[in-house]
Amino acid sequence: MSAGWFRRRFLPGEPLPAPRPPGPRASPVPYQRPRFLRGSGSSPGAADASRRPGSRPVRSPARGRALPWNAGYAEIINAEKSEFNEDQAACGKLCIRRCEFGAEEEWLTLCPEEFLTGHYWALFDGHGGPAAAILAANTLHSCLRRQLEAVVEGLVATRPPMHLSGRCICPSDPQFVEEKDIKAEDLVIGALESAFQECDEVIGRELEASGQVGGCTALVALSLQGKLYVANAGDSRAILVRRDEIRPLSSEFTPETERQRIQQLAFVCPELLAGEFTRLEFPRRLKGDDLGQKVLFRDHHMRGWSYKRVDKSDLKYPLIHGQGRQARLLGTLAVSRGLGDHQLRVLDTNIQLKPFLLSVPQVTVLDVDQLELQKDDVVVMATDGLWDVLSNEQVAWLVRSFLPGNQEDPYRFLKLAQMLIHSTQGKEDGLTGEGQVSYDDVSVFVIPLHSQGQDSSGP
Amino acid sequence: MSAGWFRRRFLPGEPLPAPRPPGPRASPVPYQRPRFLRGSGSSPGAADASRRPGSRPVRSPARGRALPWNAGYAEIINAEKSEFNEDQAACGKLCIRRCEFGAEEEWLTLCPEEFLTGHYWALFDGHGGPAAAILAANTLHSCLRRQLEAVVEGLVATRPPMHLSGRCICPSDPQFVEEKDIKAEDLVIGALESAFQECDEVIGRELEASGQVGGCTALVALSLQGKLYVANAGDSRAILVRRDEIRPLSSEFTPETERQRIQQLAFVCPELLAGEFTRLEFPRRLKGDDLGQKVLFRDHHMRGWSYKRVDKSDLKYPLIHGQGRQARLLGTLAVSRGLGDHQLRVLDTNIQLKPFLLSVPQVTVLDVDQLELQKDDVVVMATDGLWDVLSNEQVAWLVRSFLPGNQEDPYRFLKLAQMLIHSTQGKEDGLTGEGQVSYDDVSVFVIPLHSQGQDSSGP
Repeated sequence: MSAGWFRRRFLPGEPLPAPRPPGPRASPVPYQRPRFLRGSGSSPGAADASRRPGSRPVRSPARGRALPWNAGYAEIINAEKSEFNEDQAACGKLCIRRCEFGAEEEWLTLCPEEFLTGHYWALFDGHGGPAAAILAANTLHSCLRRQLEAVVEGLVATRPPMHLSGRCICPSDPQFVEEKDIKAEDLVIGALESAFQECDEVIGRELEASGQVGGCTALVALSLQGKLYVANAGDSRAILVRRDEIRPLSSEFTPETERQRIQQLAFVCPELLAGEFTRLEFPRRLKGDDLGQKVLFRDHHMRGWSYKRVDKSDLKYPLIHGQGRQARLLGTLAVSRGLGDHQLRVLDTNIQLKPFLLSVPQVTVLDVDQLELQKDDVVVMATDGLWDVLSNEQVAWLVRSFLPGNQEDPYRFLKLAQMLIHSTQGKEDGLTGEGQVSYDDVSVFVIPLHSQGQDSSGP
Repeated sequence: MSAGWFRRRFLPGEPLPAPRPPGPRASPVPYQRPRFLRGSGSSPGAADASRRPGSRPVRSPARGRALPWNAGYAEIINAEKSEFNEDQAACGKLCIRRCEFGAEEEWLTLCPEEFLTGHYWALFDGHGGPAAAILAANTLHSCLRRQLEAVVEGLVATRPPMHLSGRCICPSDPQFVEEKDIKAEDLVIGALESAFQECDEVIGRELEASGQVGGCTALVALSLQGKLYVANAGDSRAILVRRDEIRPLSSEFTPETERQRIQQLAFVCPELLAGEFTRLEFPRRLKGDDLGQKVLFRDHHMRGWSYKRVDKSDLKYPLIHGQGRQARLLGTLAVSRGLGDHQLRVLDTNIQLKPFLLSVPQVTVLDVDQLELQKDDVVVMATDGLWDVLSNEQVAWLVRSFLPGNQEDPYRFLKLAQMLIHSTQGKEDGLTGEGQVSYDDVSVFVIPLHSQGQDSSGP
């Protein structure tokens, strides 16, 4: 992204980039379920639409079709909120090739064989249609592989070199890298950040070309060189569950959790609100009766609350409105990070959502090699449909109730994923008692850490 | 601050506010030491300038002049870095009056007597001259009192009302406040945030009027209604030291810790850099030999690192440059939050620092009433001169070595503050062993939590 990109793209009065010549419209992204579900029990695709309330099928990979590390997966479509399941998933081995520095200061792939191997699991929760999530599921791992291959020399060095060629321009180059404490791990974080951005651009281009719209959240777990990287943009969640520990591996990005960032942008670039919204937060939307009163409010720089006297401009619709699950950015979107949404505008206006959204994920690093792993240590990744009705503690309780008694069952992680889905459907399973019901799409990965690939051939 | 304020103030092409008519220049802010040092042993004021290396006096309040809660205080001037001691301090009782809602929907002070009592300790570390820190020491507590008085009705309610009048416009008003979980504590945080901003504006006006320049950091501890609020803007630090616990009560705001916020602003408003700086971070400043190479870099959205091919614009001076104590914003300033600096520009340019600085503090709340307080539990607040040479652990070790054996000494907190200052002077005191030397101004408060005002008459 160039320095002026943001302003050219979003601020009025800046010269606009030349519009692309209208080409032939690409064909729309076809609806599909994750590839690893092919051949599984329940009927795929449009047949989902025939579901009746209470009879939604839980889908999992066919037995015998092992996912990386023998991870379990299960999903359920929403209760007729949308025609299609807008969640998507992907997983696989990530083969990172080594490139070597060749002639003419260009990077040449001299030995294209696999050099480093990673494993990858990803969940995407779409909105405004399934297209963005499908594109993300088909694309993000390729972006990530490309980004990792671009820095692979740095990944395998004791410390990444200042110059990718390894040549020092100054004798003190290694000292500068050491002073900033830049580690191989930071290159993986950087690669994840860049991959999300690259994927976002691909989705923008593809959806524009096919005349489709929509966006999605993205939650990725990447295992590489003994570490597990969890990258999150949106409101899905990953947690580590061990016998004596529940550790969140991600945090959610919603208009509420990112209030200050979003208000700050509206403060610096008020034209993004086109005079239609107020950036201030109030306990509720204000109305005529509030005029002249002193009411509770928060601005971009405040973590605390104060009172202000209400004037007419405070009666506008709030930039961020609603509470908890109902919170919306510009009255439109429930998440503040994710991929896609390039064309999204506030209904009946020209106000764009995209400048307020970030495609960059937050990345958490779990040093798996430093954990004294137990057989039942797992990472649970799921879309918000699960976490809306189950707490981290309830999920951990289900994990700890089920796994220890089923250590010999080769399908235990798959069954646990299914059980987690069932627990979102208010079923009396004797575990969580009277359950809440999720009417959203729900998708779950259960990733066992103990096997870490040794056991990856699965059952 | 109005929505357009930032752009009008800092962005070229925006209509400028009409300049103030040049009035008679106000007299410059006179140099002084904190009021509570009057009558203390070492000679005050300009006599500081007569110091010789190794013979700098440690100054403390005169014995018999007790500070709130019998807190200890000590300070030392720098080793001829500047003519004056640029640190300042203030402390005292904060008497918050109650205002009642009177006729004509205006707030009238009906019972001006004291209603709530707080205690206040503050440290200011000036730069570019002592004026901003002196103004802050003279002003911030008044701003804070005013801000607290403006919301005092909310402070004493079970929950702050949506409307300061207490009248509900909607029957569901209390429910909205409860859903957002707004507490009295949030009003104190908001008051601290607003007070810092108000004080910053006062300093801007006063310095402009007197033709002076400069800025300062601000660290405030406020005790109110059984809680201790620590508000920090800059690189001073407060920690809680107990027998078994060291708890940081603040974090530092420097160009390094706020890199992403600062780079983000330069990304959205590149004109703030006037084409003279690059917002990108590299391990060191790049030079001609790096052109065309792929080097490590970070942009505003990245917590990780990646490589980019160097082009000519990357050779510009970096927005944030240097490492640790040497890190500078725009080559000029070592802190990224504080008060003042309204006129500060990059040497020989028109590039302003102020748009990148925040005057708003981060506020930490310590629920003192919930701690099982021991006699030797203290909060240590100090400017960066102390923390540059002593770690939290070393400070805690000094606290724990000294206090238990001196419980009957009424001057023990004062002596501990002096001992902490001595430990920054490389003196062999048998406690920290071979000590590092701080050549900076150093100021320390030691605030005992156990007495909490009960004992505030002091020795």
